[in-house]
Amino acid sequence: MKKLYQDAHTLINESIEANLPDTAVRNALKNHRFGGPVSVLAIGKAAWTMADAAQKELGNTIKHGIVITKYKHAQGAIPGFEIIEAGHPVSDENTIKGTEKALEMAKGLSAGDELLFLISGGGSALFEKPLPGLTLADIVDVNNQLLASGADIVEINMIRKRLSSVKAGHFAQICAPAKVFTVVLSDVLGDRLDSIASGPAAPDVSTAEDALKVAQKYRLNLTGTVKKYLAEETPKSLNNVETVITGSVRTFCQSAANLARGLGYTPYVLCTEMNCEAKEAGRLMAAMARDIDREESAFRRPCAVILGGETVVHLTGTGGKGGRNQEIALAAVGGIAGLEKTIVFSVGSDGTDGPTDAAGGIVDGTTADKLKAAGINIASCLQANADYEALNAVNALILTGPTGTNVNDISVILAG
Amino acid sequence: MKKLYQDAHTLINESIEANLPDTAVRNALKNHRFGGPVSVLAIGKAAWTMADAAQKELGNTIKHGIVITKYKHAQGAIPGFEIIEAGHPVSDENTIKGTEKALEMAKGLSAGDELLFLISGGGSALFEKPLPGLTLADIVDVNNQLLASGADIVEINMIRKRLSSVKAGHFAQICAPAKVFTVVLSDVLGDRLDSIASGPAAPDVSTAEDALKVAQKYRLNLTGTVKKYLAEETPKSLNNVETVITGSVRTFCQSAANLARGLGYTPYVLCTEMNCEAKEAGRLMAAMARDIDREESAFRRPCAVILGGETVVHLTGTGGKGGRNQEIALAAVGGIAGLEKTIVFSVGSDGTDGPTDAAGGIVDGTTADKLKAAGINIASCLQANADYEALNAVNALILTGPTGTNVNDISVILAG
Repeated sequence: MKKLYQDAHTLINESIEANLPDTAVRNALKNHRFGGPVSVLAIGKAAWTMADAAQKELGNTIKHGIVITKYKHAQGAIPGFEIIEAGHPVSDENTIKGTEKALEMAKGLSAGDELLFLISGGGSALFEKPLPGLTLADIVDVNNQLLASGADIVEINMIRKRLSSVKAGHFAQICAPAKVFTVVLSDVLGDRLDSIASGPAAPDVSTAEDALKVAQKYRLNLTGTVKKYLAEETPKSLNNVETVITGSVRTFCQSAANLARGLGYTPYVLCTEMNCEAKEAGRLMAAMARDIDREESAFRRPCAVILGGETVVHLTGTGGKGGRNQEIALAAVGGIAGLEKTIVFSVGSDGTDGPTDAAGGIVDGTTADKLKAAGINIASCLQANADYEALNAVNALILTGPTGTNVNDISVILAG
Repeated sequence: MKKLYQDAHTLINESIEANLPDTAVRNALKNHRFGGPVSVLAIGKAAWTMADAAQKELGNTIKHGIVITKYKHAQGAIPGFEIIEAGHPVSDENTIKGTEKALEMAKGLSAGDELLFLISGGGSALFEKPLPGLTLADIVDVNNQLLASGADIVEINMIRKRLSSVKAGHFAQICAPAKVFTVVLSDVLGDRLDSIASGPAAPDVSTAEDALKVAQKYRLNLTGTVKKYLAEETPKSLNNVETVITGSVRTFCQSAANLARGLGYTPYVLCTEMNCEAKEAGRLMAAMARDIDREESAFRRPCAVILGGETVVHLTGTGGKGGRNQEIALAAVGGIAGLEKTIVFSVGSDGTDGPTDAAGGIVDGTTADKLKAAGINIASCLQANADYEALNAVNALILTGPTGTNVNDISVILAG
């Protein structure tokens, strides 16, 4: 088991390492040649790290750079860059100030210029300027109406992006005829480019007709200006944009698979958009582990079965502390009890799973007995969403500290 | 899509066919040679069909046979057999009458004799005689106390089987020194022999100490006689018994895998004990289907990804009609919307999923649009557990009629 745990931790640490923002930027730039001077705009929670990596790679090729990131996320000056910190998850006046600087830069570009656009999670809140005649308060009001009426995230985004002067492809349009090379570190399952940061450099797939239908469906109370903007069509194609996703849950899964292979395990990636209830995913993984153990599975040990995504937790208790990855691990404990040479773990790439200091949980066939010996009832803890307390008591937490990246989670069955 | 649906229905029909009680019995008898005359005892909901198949195979070799099955489950006379119908799921006086006949037969066996013991689901309720000094009412009372105190199924069975004169290996003990050849059609996940029909011919893994601890844990109010029996040890080994499981969710999965291979699909059996929430299994299967579609999965199309088990449904609505297999299918609809050449289906081998006349549900990438066109909201139907209504409206039910077998369910992604 010692070797298995060593391998699990190697897999966790190195697959996160391969998906850090700076690695992602270096990988993207490796395969791209810029024709001349480059302007850089970095938005999102990882903007500083991505911009710093770009500066180190491109050096003097960079003409001018802007970073818009969350408060306390800048780590110092970067030569040639202006750095703006702003509100997240709620946009504020600094958001608009930073976005105006970016718009100014965009408007100054001409045909021979190129913009390197670095996007990471949080970009939607950190990059925003309402269209003329609207304020942030107007957008918040529409948003609140949508939330209250039970609209889903697709519908909310469809409306919101139409009130912005940078989202839904508008920013790339403003950069034209200059070329935009977009490098994305994605925290959105499925990597839909028009969803990541609300798609400032991606053609919008929704139409004005769709948006108006949503407004009607929820009987939104809208001002004349908002109505006018909803009826305007968003860019449906952008011929000055090239986009590369270098970090996402898919590359995270792929990194884990490659590392597993290197360690001698056959990797099986089952999915990259797991979005079901965390504890049910844990139970299903345990069921798979049992069939691997009795050699009746399609997966032959030694193997690493990898599921990527972002599960959900519906709170059923209060007072407990935990996170979706810890819940997956704890929910698997009962089902793998007694299995030998089998580990189940689940880890969030950002290193902070739920409101805890753990990145996830890691359990094996002996964990059930250890919990029992510690007087901890698994069912009660799952019911109370007290995953952290339970796993912490038996030394089954994964602790990486904040990693600076966010490409969602991987959940793995490691069978030696 | 027509070919894919044809293949799906072939897979459904023929994998159930391969796990019908008569097929199961024929397969088991094929590899077993009886030394001399054979007595037969068949218990459970499929007892009649299993006994009938045995009679057809063994003919005059059978000395005497007894069938104990549920009311309305006998389909006529079988030469050489006494047929008793009794209460299920609640045992009644006919249960005891039938069990007494079986005990009489068992006591009459001698060293050279052999008993063919055919067990199917429902055997626990249909084969019961309380130990001397106890009545069915005593057992019901203990059972009710256990249910009210929140004991789990393992704990309940541990106590109950100790109050029976036939369960927990007792029946096989009474047959000794005659040999017992047990053929099992299992509806219990994991095929634990001491659980199937409460293990009348299987060594008991729980101890008297375990049982007394459970009694103490839930502060059961017990008579002196019950206490005495709980303290008595059950058989821990039986040297006159040979057991074959010829029908179970594992053989069901294997049949589906073999059929899929024959139809040109690479089969992948992921698990045979899926026991999570039905709708979450559906969502996870949809996530897997999406990765198969974009060719980023460990599974290469054409393929059949097979998950066996018995999922659970926690009712969240009232008034809706459905079943766990229909819920898996409906929950997958949103996630596979738009995928081509992809079907997700889930089917119960007994042909009656929940309180409906459907065996399960079968959906594809166009089902979401069809539901929308029919004015049906998937989320609302899942919330109301109204799977049947939704699937029925778009012709997405699997209708086999009652099949006469029960080896749980299979859920399949079929990617052409």
